[in-house]
Amino acid sequence: MTVKTSELNNLAAHEIVRGIEAGAFTAEAVTRACLERIAAREKTVKAWAFLDRDHALAQAWALDSEPVRGPLHGVPVGVKDVIDTADMPTQMGSPIYDDHRPGADASCVALMRAAGAVILGKTITCEFAGSTANVTTNPIDPARTPGGSSSGTAAAIADHMVTIGFGTQTGGSVLRPSSFCGIVGYKPSYNAVNRAGLKFAAESLDTIGLMTRTVADADAMGAVLTGRATVVGKGAPDRPRIGLCRTYLWPTAEPATVSAIEDAARRLAAAGAQLTEVALPDRFDRLGAARDVLNDYERAHAMAYEWNSHRDRLSPGLRRAIENGYAMDLARYAEAQRLAADCRGRLGPVFDGCDVLLAPCVPGEAPVGLASTGDPKMQGLWTILHVPTITLPTHKGPNGMPVGIQLVGAPGADTLLLAVADWVMSRLGADR
Amino acid sequence: MTVKTSELNNLAAHEIVRGIEAGAFTAEAVTRACLERIAAREKTVKAWAFLDRDHALAQAWALDSEPVRGPLHGVPVGVKDVIDTADMPTQMGSPIYDDHRPGADASCVALMRAAGAVILGKTITCEFAGSTANVTTNPIDPARTPGGSSSGTAAAIADHMVTIGFGTQTGGSVLRPSSFCGIVGYKPSYNAVNRAGLKFAAESLDTIGLMTRTVADADAMGAVLTGRATVVGKGAPDRPRIGLCRTYLWPTAEPATVSAIEDAARRLAAAGAQLTEVALPDRFDRLGAARDVLNDYERAHAMAYEWNSHRDRLSPGLRRAIENGYAMDLARYAEAQRLAADCRGRLGPVFDGCDVLLAPCVPGEAPVGLASTGDPKMQGLWTILHVPTITLPTHKGPNGMPVGIQLVGAPGADTLLLAVADWVMSRLGADR
Repeated sequence: MTVKTSELNNLAAHEIVRGIEAGAFTAEAVTRACLERIAAREKTVKAWAFLDRDHALAQAWALDSEPVRGPLHGVPVGVKDVIDTADMPTQMGSPIYDDHRPGADASCVALMRAAGAVILGKTITCEFAGSTANVTTNPIDPARTPGGSSSGTAAAIADHMVTIGFGTQTGGSVLRPSSFCGIVGYKPSYNAVNRAGLKFAAESLDTIGLMTRTVADADAMGAVLTGRATVVGKGAPDRPRIGLCRTYLWPTAEPATVSAIEDAARRLAAAGAQLTEVALPDRFDRLGAARDVLNDYERAHAMAYEWNSHRDRLSPGLRRAIENGYAMDLARYAEAQRLAADCRGRLGPVFDGCDVLLAPCVPGEAPVGLASTGDPKMQGLWTILHVPTITLPTHKGPNGMPVGIQLVGAPGADTLLLAVADWVMSRLGADR
Repeated sequence: MTVKTSELNNLAAHEIVRGIEAGAFTAEAVTRACLERIAAREKTVKAWAFLDRDHALAQAWALDSEPVRGPLHGVPVGVKDVIDTADMPTQMGSPIYDDHRPGADASCVALMRAAGAVILGKTITCEFAGSTANVTTNPIDPARTPGGSSSGTAAAIADHMVTIGFGTQTGGSVLRPSSFCGIVGYKPSYNAVNRAGLKFAAESLDTIGLMTRTVADADAMGAVLTGRATVVGKGAPDRPRIGLCRTYLWPTAEPATVSAIEDAARRLAAAGAQLTEVALPDRFDRLGAARDVLNDYERAHAMAYEWNSHRDRLSPGLRRAIENGYAMDLARYAEAQRLAADCRGRLGPVFDGCDVLLAPCVPGEAPVGLASTGDPKMQGLWTILHVPTITLPTHKGPNGMPVGIQLVGAPGADTLLLAVADWVMSRLGADR
């Protein structure tokens, strides 16, 4: 492998590990390439909440001085700033936590370190992983939102400032920014990735998401976090069964998304996929409202400390959301939980005839303006169902902005989802 | 109300609030009475991980200088030391967290403060809420275990050092110590009490539990934490439908528990309860093993930071448990999650004919010796089902030690459970 040192920030994780193992370059060189890209571009992109060059390089030097530690040896990682790090502040996108230093790494961070990753820095999040936009821009067009709330991780990976990273999804905070910025965003099955050390938004929805530029890297991260073997490149279904599932949100899809999904369906069928149409049971159209109920009720309770002790330092939007949550009746919350459980119990037949669903991910391209991070509904429907989902950067809209498709797996069927996603990506290609 | 100042530590929460409102005594006097009891008894009971008299009194003074803040105004609370407090250390029962100070209160602590409670101090937990015993003794017989892992909260409440408190249950860590020490231990429905600020043991099982000396106090705490109205004293079912559910663990019940459950069933029927026998579906007998799988897999991942950075400061027992967890296949974990979801989906018919189940809570009296905290199986069966459960101190064993019964509610039916529990307690009385 010959790669210019100045281009090491463009590599995928497996290429980095292979290159370091082969002696083609060092972990330090990879980290330096990322830091240089950040130095050149951060003024525009504004992806980082905390970055200490020396500390990042010290991690890389330590790795260069020891045998290969694990499957992510030397790979730079960006960590959304609602996930605890023992050696860096965790500021939650809120002045309440200025310079706050947790006592421990979150589980997902510690597992990355044990696999050899370099924790490059903390990426900008919307205030407490909510919907109040932060300063990050879309690296493809800085006049547009990168999406949120995992804005910094999405923008940094899309801009090749870092190789892989963590987001969190409570509504659509991993899949939407990934789609808007043109990267791979993978939300594992609920419960698959341990959440110790995560600041909760709404705990019955919160899922740690894996953000990358390739499906293989998402697979590699998932393998490290759950102790399973990788699956990408080890044989996908020959003719994957793909259920085209427009969902009840289809009327809200803009032409860019309609054409992305229909083009994907057509070309995947032509490539050998067994395509069917899948309709969700009627009551699933109430899941969006139920998700909002869970979100608001749990959010208000999770923020009890900040609400009682630092109310004046919360944004007006978050204050309103918390007020809504406290005003909500427990009975209404319990009813939303029952609907969610009931719908999860009805997923068996939905996946009976297919390996994955193909569904819209976002209404369309990233909207112009930084005040809103976009519409979470198409992602949130699957978050409340606890199923694994992944967005792939397969299409572009009329303004040349990315429009990702979404693939959805059955509960716990993460490895099948990833294997099919790799098959799909290889058939559709990137950057169309 | 006339109560001797020296006996204020014996009151229930609602008596404290009423007395302060009526001007019969102050929050300071209540806190002082608890502190005096602790000074007299802590050498034997060893319930407290952190206690700062001046800080406790300062909270009480602040309450005495303002109007009644909420429904727990002036009530002293003990907080298990795996739950974050912004103004006190949170040490997890582990030297790794000596003097560790979190940046925020846990949700449940912040909600108690907003309701007017005095956070008296932090109570001793087994190491990271696991099964490695700590130093707390059973206040009724210091040669016996208080149970665990919420050892300190149970012992402190039983010994009248504090009025109410928090525990956490992943297996049986709320119900078992409550039964062993002779208090009321209530594990709400999973998801009902927000866990922001809780150190996770196994997040798909961990439930914050409410520990008290009366059912009314458990109800009052639950109301504050979830925003619902209280139910105790506002009309219970006339003839509650109680399903006697011996469970597949009945053969492990000692004579003390057999006679407690059978005596309870007989006397409740005589008092007007509609008693039926309820058998759990066959596959439920696999839930105990499934709980262990979830516990071990999730525990290992939740402890990734401590495992990687402080392994030598973990106890040998916890190191073994974490090793087991990392050695466990993800597929086995996923299978246990599927069984749990499947059994939860079968609870409808179980509760079709009854308001609550009457089930054994513990094999028998608290065992002699402090090396083990006792057997969690009879409590853990219900933890994995996510249903609300409560133990009531209705019976005693051959050595005069408490043997609690267990009442179990349908998923989300916490208020019905509490209303029936109050009915049951009033029919059976305490200290038999």
